[in-house]
Amino acid sequence: MHQINMGDDLRERNREIAAENTVMLKKHGVVSINIMSAPGAGKTSLLVASIPGLMKKYRVGVIEGDLQTSRDAERVAALGIDVYQIETGGVCHLDASMVHSALHQLDLDSIDILLVENVGNLVCPAEFDVGVDAKVMLLSITEGDDKPKKYPLMFHESDLLIMNKIDLAPYVDFDIEKAKSEARDINPSIDIIEISCKTGQGIEAWVDWMVRLCDERKS
Amino acid sequence: MHQINMGDDLRERNREIAAENTVMLKKHGVVSINIMSAPGAGKTSLLVASIPGLMKKYRVGVIEGDLQTSRDAERVAALGIDVYQIETGGVCHLDASMVHSALHQLDLDSIDILLVENVGNLVCPAEFDVGVDAKVMLLSITEGDDKPKKYPLMFHESDLLIMNKIDLAPYVDFDIEKAKSEARDINPSIDIIEISCKTGQGIEAWVDWMVRLCDERKS
Repeated sequence: MHQINMGDDLRERNREIAAENTVMLKKHGVVSINIMSAPGAGKTSLLVASIPGLMKKYRVGVIEGDLQTSRDAERVAALGIDVYQIETGGVCHLDASMVHSALHQLDLDSIDILLVENVGNLVCPAEFDVGVDAKVMLLSITEGDDKPKKYPLMFHESDLLIMNKIDLAPYVDFDIEKAKSEARDINPSIDIIEISCKTGQGIEAWVDWMVRLCDERKS
Repeated sequence: MHQINMGDDLRERNREIAAENTVMLKKHGVVSINIMSAPGAGKTSLLVASIPGLMKKYRVGVIEGDLQTSRDAERVAALGIDVYQIETGGVCHLDASMVHSALHQLDLDSIDILLVENVGNLVCPAEFDVGVDAKVMLLSITEGDDKPKKYPLMFHESDLLIMNKIDLAPYVDFDIEKAKSEARDINPSIDIIEISCKTGQGIEAWVDWMVRLCDERKS
């Protein structure tokens, strides 16, 4: 079987810029989260549902990654926060360099926590570190409970797995316990929260998770 | 904004091998379809639901593309047909070279129609032609009706858009007419079929679509 290997130079360069991002964020006291998922798993809905709760405690900034269109950025900006839009122009993930440019455009001194919404893709975003404090992945239960075994790197890299659209559980064949168990086989320390952006279930637990992360990193 | 451009050499090399695949398939009288979607939209379920109907008229072969695991290939092979599994080892799409290797392993004289299940990804599979007769994309209505505008290349490249999980329509906010209209804005000649692999709705229309393609290409 043929395989394309990403050049070592490109990987190394990404790592260097990711490290610069980490230093830059730390210097300004900004805690950061990279949010990843397949297309349509609900990343933007998650932000819209949880940012108002998070804003009660911390000042929030957002970087929106999209192939094209600024629809998601507009939905988030409507909450009254700073959003920086990256249109990747067809590139299927954010890399450290794209995020680096965005960091230079944001007023980091007016932000406590930065949420980075990656491009909808279960593969490449997991391969490109962007220098954040934590990685969160969203899995819609409509995508099937076979995803941990089929996309292991994403589960391996994530600190938190959010299972979204839990309100659809009665209508889809998704074995929640099996998916949790297979996710933990790949990543024993992964946190897991079940949510529904539609009903609001679990949103408070997700806000609490972010607040705990901020408290830990800022203390 | 930073952008990674795929090297022209790599694109050109992929085009050349895709053209070789086309010649090879034509020589053996095999009609071929590249099936693409986001992770968990139901590509394998679509194959399992429709291959028995297709087998009444044509001999079917399948190439299964996965990052890892042969779960999908096993589900399809259980139908009693030839399946060739490509594990991409982390690469987020099939390319013409991977498919070329698979064509050399399959007995093309015992196949009338070859279904290629791509890696679950709404971005890169649309960029890599593999030399087939038709491209089909699957969109689960749980992914949201904003997908045509957000992932236009996939809609632009596809001959047929299959809207899957239509049985979940009462439970999700998905404007079917809006999504159809936006898909047609991008690709005015795209065919559209609504299906549910769970209830069987629309599966016959999809089998008929494949049979018509075979009849056209073989006549």
